[in-house]
Amino acid sequence: MTAKEEKSAISPRRSEDFSEWYQQVVRAAELAENSPVRGCMVIKPWGFTLWENMQRVLDKMFKDTGHRNAYFPLLIPKSYLEKEAEHIKGFATECAVVTHTRLEMGEDGKFHPASPLEEPLVIRPTSETIIGEMYSRWVQSYRDLPLLINQWANVMRWEMRTRLFLRTSEFLWQEGHTVHASSEEALEETHRMLKIYANFCEQYMAVPVIQGEKTDREKFAGAETTLCIEAMMQDRKALQSGTSHYFGQKFAKASNISYLDENGDQVFGWTTSWGVSTRLVGGLVMVHSDDDGLIIPPRLAPTHVVILPIIRDDKSKDEVLNYCEKLSRELKEITWDGRSLEVELDDRDIRGGDKMWQWIKKGVPLRVEVGPRDIAEDKVFIGRRDKGQRDRFSQNRNEFISEIGTVLNEIQNNLLERAKKNLNEHTVNIDSKEAFYEFFTPQNKDKPEIHGGFAMAHWSGDPEIEEEVQKDLGVSIRCIPFNNEEESGNCVISGKPSNRRVVWGKGY
Amino acid sequence: MTAKEEKSAISPRRSEDFSEWYQQVVRAAELAENSPVRGCMVIKPWGFTLWENMQRVLDKMFKDTGHRNAYFPLLIPKSYLEKEAEHIKGFATECAVVTHTRLEMGEDGKFHPASPLEEPLVIRPTSETIIGEMYSRWVQSYRDLPLLINQWANVMRWEMRTRLFLRTSEFLWQEGHTVHASSEEALEETHRMLKIYANFCEQYMAVPVIQGEKTDREKFAGAETTLCIEAMMQDRKALQSGTSHYFGQKFAKASNISYLDENGDQVFGWTTSWGVSTRLVGGLVMVHSDDDGLIIPPRLAPTHVVILPIIRDDKSKDEVLNYCEKLSRELKEITWDGRSLEVELDDRDIRGGDKMWQWIKKGVPLRVEVGPRDIAEDKVFIGRRDKGQRDRFSQNRNEFISEIGTVLNEIQNNLLERAKKNLNEHTVNIDSKEAFYEFFTPQNKDKPEIHGGFAMAHWSGDPEIEEEVQKDLGVSIRCIPFNNEEESGNCVISGKPSNRRVVWGKGY
Repeated sequence: MTAKEEKSAISPRRSEDFSEWYQQVVRAAELAENSPVRGCMVIKPWGFTLWENMQRVLDKMFKDTGHRNAYFPLLIPKSYLEKEAEHIKGFATECAVVTHTRLEMGEDGKFHPASPLEEPLVIRPTSETIIGEMYSRWVQSYRDLPLLINQWANVMRWEMRTRLFLRTSEFLWQEGHTVHASSEEALEETHRMLKIYANFCEQYMAVPVIQGEKTDREKFAGAETTLCIEAMMQDRKALQSGTSHYFGQKFAKASNISYLDENGDQVFGWTTSWGVSTRLVGGLVMVHSDDDGLIIPPRLAPTHVVILPIIRDDKSKDEVLNYCEKLSRELKEITWDGRSLEVELDDRDIRGGDKMWQWIKKGVPLRVEVGPRDIAEDKVFIGRRDKGQRDRFSQNRNEFISEIGTVLNEIQNNLLERAKKNLNEHTVNIDSKEAFYEFFTPQNKDKPEIHGGFAMAHWSGDPEIEEEVQKDLGVSIRCIPFNNEEESGNCVISGKPSNRRVVWGKGY
Repeated sequence: MTAKEEKSAISPRRSEDFSEWYQQVVRAAELAENSPVRGCMVIKPWGFTLWENMQRVLDKMFKDTGHRNAYFPLLIPKSYLEKEAEHIKGFATECAVVTHTRLEMGEDGKFHPASPLEEPLVIRPTSETIIGEMYSRWVQSYRDLPLLINQWANVMRWEMRTRLFLRTSEFLWQEGHTVHASSEEALEETHRMLKIYANFCEQYMAVPVIQGEKTDREKFAGAETTLCIEAMMQDRKALQSGTSHYFGQKFAKASNISYLDENGDQVFGWTTSWGVSTRLVGGLVMVHSDDDGLIIPPRLAPTHVVILPIIRDDKSKDEVLNYCEKLSRELKEITWDGRSLEVELDDRDIRGGDKMWQWIKKGVPLRVEVGPRDIAEDKVFIGRRDKGQRDRFSQNRNEFISEIGTVLNEIQNNLLERAKKNLNEHTVNIDSKEAFYEFFTPQNKDKPEIHGGFAMAHWSGDPEIEEEVQKDLGVSIRCIPFNNEEESGNCVISGKPSNRRVVWGKGY
């Protein structure tokens, strides 16, 4: 077979149908699958361990910056959601509503809802209103501030069109909710947490992000300012990967979070909230995977190394397994990136080729094959997931062990560099309406997904232009980036004067 | 004041009103409080960190025995719950039912439930049925077994009478769900997990438990066998602290979990489930706390040591704080019980006495007071939470540091020994109906809660006797204990022949 004809482990390939490729990677890697409950997914052990690793790192970052975890109720009284007018409007269309608290057997022998509630309860789509109520009790004096709390929880936003990890009716996330004594402090917190998200994405997920602020049209329902990080997927679309909201005193007033300040005056607090979700798992898949399946950055990998014993006959079986077990034990004693190496010895009695491909599709950073011939030479046969499947090589066993940390760092860096290259190559300054429309119009009818990427273009601040571009091209302003210098120009669509470029893109 | 007149930090005392004392300890320790959502609590940071510590230890125990975590949907279609007849009957009266997926503004300007669901969804009271559905897809061959998965999740059982941690409509728990190729293996798993719970309670919570099997009347809805651990609280009532269920093939048949065995026959699997919940936090409070508040066993403490600087004047302030910071740094470098010591330096500007009492009520194992006079002698002033508040002593600073691990072990052991003493003293063999009724009848009308404790009494296996005793005395069979030798006798109530004693008690 020529290289061109070679079959990929995932079908279709990215270039053929990105969206279907994504679903197939998630399935082949055993990350998650759809459940019989509309729009709700099941996160399988491999996907959940990846999420646990993300949680562990983020949780430490939150705790190191003074936050503590707590837990608030799943159900929110409807009247609480109604306290902040924009907030309820933003979430009303996607609320799962609990109306009864019992099932009762009917004459048909089936169970039916009974004991209706006086006031319906909504499964939290987010917790500002219920947490606000508690904070109004807890915050009495300036001594109680800042109040820095985070919650790991499930939330529910009823979605009509869902996609594993990217958009599901139920998802897992963390939501930080803080109260401060001044606007400055609250804004500082909003930026601090966005920065933590950006660092996490870059350093752990190997996903570079653009940090910036949402336009009024795109911000969170009820926020004064929404900051976000935006990542570019391999199909050049944007994934909003984390948000951090500054509420000013809006929610403090809605929930009456007020306290006695140092002068003895009763004043309102300033609040923030910030969150990332299991959506990050989807982003990781879309940034790093290839036509053979998932590729997991080593710092988040559930398993760093899988050892695959090659057993040709019963005679050599024990020798090979013993060698592999010894290798496994030695590797497990290595600490890398603050945790012991996770090593899997896969001695299942199935075909070697199938076994290897399963691990490729699951994205394990390193595969080590060991057969009788390798043992005779005290060598191991290594496959790196950031390289092609045919690009394997033989290495002295002890050398492999002593260099494994370096190799994992190399893989981590390679993934980040590739992702940066994709982001940089497809982020383009655009200065005419014509070029803008061309940039976002797929050049190949068979591949409607492939367009230019991110356009850095001038915008005067006019929300009608956002509407127009959204309608025409399905493109929105992803953010007003922080690190963009002021530059005078004209809105790429309307021609009105503008003093900055913003990031335009198609979004997930 | 004489000792008798001395005020306690918690009012009422245990001996005055145990139930109210419990609520006050939970409140004073800032573990949790009621939320505006009926029956749902808010777990505050101090309580949640305690739960996180429990999770960390249990999670490791589960992983060390081959289990992996996953996540299944919060909502269960009504028809799934109906698949197993006893199961739905057991949970129907406490189901929170989602019937609508949107809120819509009505003519009254308020939002109302809209978009009714064709089939109602129930917030999981437990996940056997939804997990069973997924397992029926995942288990195809004997090679897929055993399937060993755990889930950390929130669950909802609508309760009319709730109590923080002990009985709340929403609670946090873990639920393990496993499938095996034989009855023996499934039973072995059921026992293995119960043993893990028992070890956790004894070794970490310092709570001794009785392990045994539930009677048919008391077992889980749908289980063939329910194993449990039962702990005795300070009011001598029992708290069911963990359960492990063997389902035989009942749920496998209800959900069609079947596979091709090694002979090529299609057969059903054998399943188990097991769980502990935030109820354990309530148990910990009721076993260890005293009239001054919570006492936390060091192995689970969010903070092991709190340092309280005694600042008399501005002159010595810096010196004292520097000394305390240095002490804090040194303590944090100590590893005890597999983790770094958690040290809190409380330099808040509030009255020293108030501050000390806050930490006593929160149950921190060790308090260290440091003032100018202590510094002059290079000493620290220690308070141990397992001893009286007046029982403090001065110790050389370096000695304190070098002995802290030993002291924490001592505190952990003391708590366990006290709890064992309470259990043993109030677990009594009883052989006549008269003595049995007297044992469970409060001797003092003013203290209706104080009764004998656990009665080890003969029972012939007759469920009508269980009903009768429950009705008369509010007493049930907590379990048929494992470690009880066969012994012939007669049912303490009916006089029918019996070959074993069972544990009777009032339960939470």
